[in-house]
Amino acid sequence: MINPALLPLSGVTRQELTQRAQCLSEKLKQAGLPLAIIGYNPDLFYFTGSVQAGYALITQEGETVYLARKDPERARVESPLEKVIPFSRFREIKEAVRNLMGGIPRRVMLPLDVVPADLFLRFKELLDRAHIEDGSAMVRECRMIKSPSELENILKGVEIYDKTIRQMPRLIHAGMSEAVAEGMLMLEMRRYGHQGLVRMRGWNQEGIDGCLYAGKAAAIPTFLDAPLGGVGMTPAIALRGGTYEIQRGEPIVFDASPGMGGYVSDQTRTAVIGRLSNKIEEAYGVVREMIQRFEAEARPGDPCSDWFKKMESMAECAGLSENFMGYGKRRVRYVGHGIGLELNEWPVVGERLPWRFEPGMVLAIEPKLVFPEIGAVGLENDYLVTSTGVSRLSITDDEIISLPDQA
Amino acid sequence: MINPALLPLSGVTRQELTQRAQCLSEKLKQAGLPLAIIGYNPDLFYFTGSVQAGYALITQEGETVYLARKDPERARVESPLEKVIPFSRFREIKEAVRNLMGGIPRRVMLPLDVVPADLFLRFKELLDRAHIEDGSAMVRECRMIKSPSELENILKGVEIYDKTIRQMPRLIHAGMSEAVAEGMLMLEMRRYGHQGLVRMRGWNQEGIDGCLYAGKAAAIPTFLDAPLGGVGMTPAIALRGGTYEIQRGEPIVFDASPGMGGYVSDQTRTAVIGRLSNKIEEAYGVVREMIQRFEAEARPGDPCSDWFKKMESMAECAGLSENFMGYGKRRVRYVGHGIGLELNEWPVVGERLPWRFEPGMVLAIEPKLVFPEIGAVGLENDYLVTSTGVSRLSITDDEIISLPDQA
Repeated sequence: MINPALLPLSGVTRQELTQRAQCLSEKLKQAGLPLAIIGYNPDLFYFTGSVQAGYALITQEGETVYLARKDPERARVESPLEKVIPFSRFREIKEAVRNLMGGIPRRVMLPLDVVPADLFLRFKELLDRAHIEDGSAMVRECRMIKSPSELENILKGVEIYDKTIRQMPRLIHAGMSEAVAEGMLMLEMRRYGHQGLVRMRGWNQEGIDGCLYAGKAAAIPTFLDAPLGGVGMTPAIALRGGTYEIQRGEPIVFDASPGMGGYVSDQTRTAVIGRLSNKIEEAYGVVREMIQRFEAEARPGDPCSDWFKKMESMAECAGLSENFMGYGKRRVRYVGHGIGLELNEWPVVGERLPWRFEPGMVLAIEPKLVFPEIGAVGLENDYLVTSTGVSRLSITDDEIISLPDQA
Repeated sequence: MINPALLPLSGVTRQELTQRAQCLSEKLKQAGLPLAIIGYNPDLFYFTGSVQAGYALITQEGETVYLARKDPERARVESPLEKVIPFSRFREIKEAVRNLMGGIPRRVMLPLDVVPADLFLRFKELLDRAHIEDGSAMVRECRMIKSPSELENILKGVEIYDKTIRQMPRLIHAGMSEAVAEGMLMLEMRRYGHQGLVRMRGWNQEGIDGCLYAGKAAAIPTFLDAPLGGVGMTPAIALRGGTYEIQRGEPIVFDASPGMGGYVSDQTRTAVIGRLSNKIEEAYGVVREMIQRFEAEARPGDPCSDWFKKMESMAECAGLSENFMGYGKRRVRYVGHGIGLELNEWPVVGERLPWRFEPGMVLAIEPKLVFPEIGAVGLENDYLVTSTGVSRLSITDDEIISLPDQA
């Protein structure tokens, strides 16, 4: 029924899926958990290569069964797994568990940060009141280290951002609202192949493809645990660009996450029509120095928290500690994060966090400075942690983007 | 610190928020639940007029306290509520509950379809292992009946769709990919004021502003419980338009949900470059007749399930029952749904569902027909249920949109 020629494929191999399942199965073994049930779309894709309304059952031995409710035929084309089993009712999952395990295990792992409470309770009922344990950390830890094929996808997003940035001088003018400027750049991203969806993990996270903030509107705080969020068009959304009109001489921050193959990049540049004030230009110099230091000095084994401290102390030396990663009480305590199938992957490069840099991590490093009633500046690049340092993935120049003054 | 002149306001009054809290408090009383804790953004906005990382505590007496973590100052400007209380740590919620209730109640309502399981378990611990009951249905039932101010917002989205449709002949050409065509129309929506985010409730629902599907690619099934979903750019996303290139003579379906003030519209038109085949044009005639019959005959008191049956039997009479709302086994069993702060609000106008039409409901009615290897046609309009029938909100003509053939 489905014409496979019309379906885009992920290119992920059965071998790679086996490696992913083995990573998880090691952690299941350590925790004494016989079975994981994975259904959240980004996690499901990671372990099956497909998101057709289903669940991946993954055992301590690393065996994976993909139960696909809708559309099972599409799931069979998309997933390289051997066992893709159609189902239609929730209770059939029990039978599938029994067939796989020879019984219903008494302890089961689900990622409880993304599974809604009602679904958690249904699973508990279905599995004879098994003890359900949160395995979100296990999944996120496996996903933290990227394979070459994952890196390849992230690089495609990096390229889309670069092509899009090159269109800014042609597209963005004074008097244009943040929202329309943002919309124009989103269209450019689609033209260059952006997948049209960005996923964020967790409670009340809203998946946003990209944001453009200008002048003093950029400095308005909002609900996100991020240095910037945007005024938005309405308090019901309270993020992204709003009706504020871009003015000459003000910093314009363009933070976007184009993606391909499910994977997102995450980069920020600061632009201006005409020239920035000396104060803001100097502030941009500070975030640039932070990025330069990171590129020169970051090494595998570095504690994530060190890089937050280093950048924070650079802000302090520049007399900008109150402006670093937000303003005053609103500052956030991180300077970067992992990227991949979601925008907010592990590790978080922040204060009091346990991780150290490991080869294969892909990080977005995003020093930003916020000045109330004036604006914000930021520079964000993507990096691969290698065995000797960090390899820069971003190909866009780090300069302030100069936009022509057409008045 | 926050310049209130830069903040867009919702216009929602304290009186309206009181009415909303009273609707919920009635239901809490009936269920014997002393307290509701509401934190999911669309629900939080509904009860507070703001989404600043917080919780609305709502008592059986209809009293509301808005705890706002980030940003409390912005929350104070946005919310007309009297009690907007800043907090910073999760455990402070317990103190706020104690202050409001004079103790920790033994039963508490949370909407468990949207609260992640880990947050549910944290609340259970925090509130001395209180029994936490799912109140999602209560919230969704209150939100089902729209106020005049909510209706006004939905009408703005309806207008944006109409303006956007008028740009289709100028923008969409043969040879353009679905994804780029979709991106161009999304930009038009932003130009006309679309808020830049669409929210969908529930597990693995992805908020999408709009989708364009063309020709045989439109007929490819995917994971959504919807008649159409799209091929997408990657199996990791598996929805929206993909790389398929629009061809002359094929149906192009544009289903989009522009919104303002947090509220979304939801409409679909079918377009074609040149002319459709007789078969497909006749199929479009069938969905049009369904819409015409709905407009003429729908009345408050009608069971939602009746309208599914009526339209299904019209498809049957036209010899198209296998194509109705999907193809074959993949047909979905509804023809419409509520719209508001989320795209998938109650009631669902479908088989075996309990609701009847009530004045104040706003419905998107969306008959669609799917033909494998050929394409799909659809027509979707928005309606207000009144005391005597339904009032059409959609202002766009129901004809097939004719796009010029520029070859």
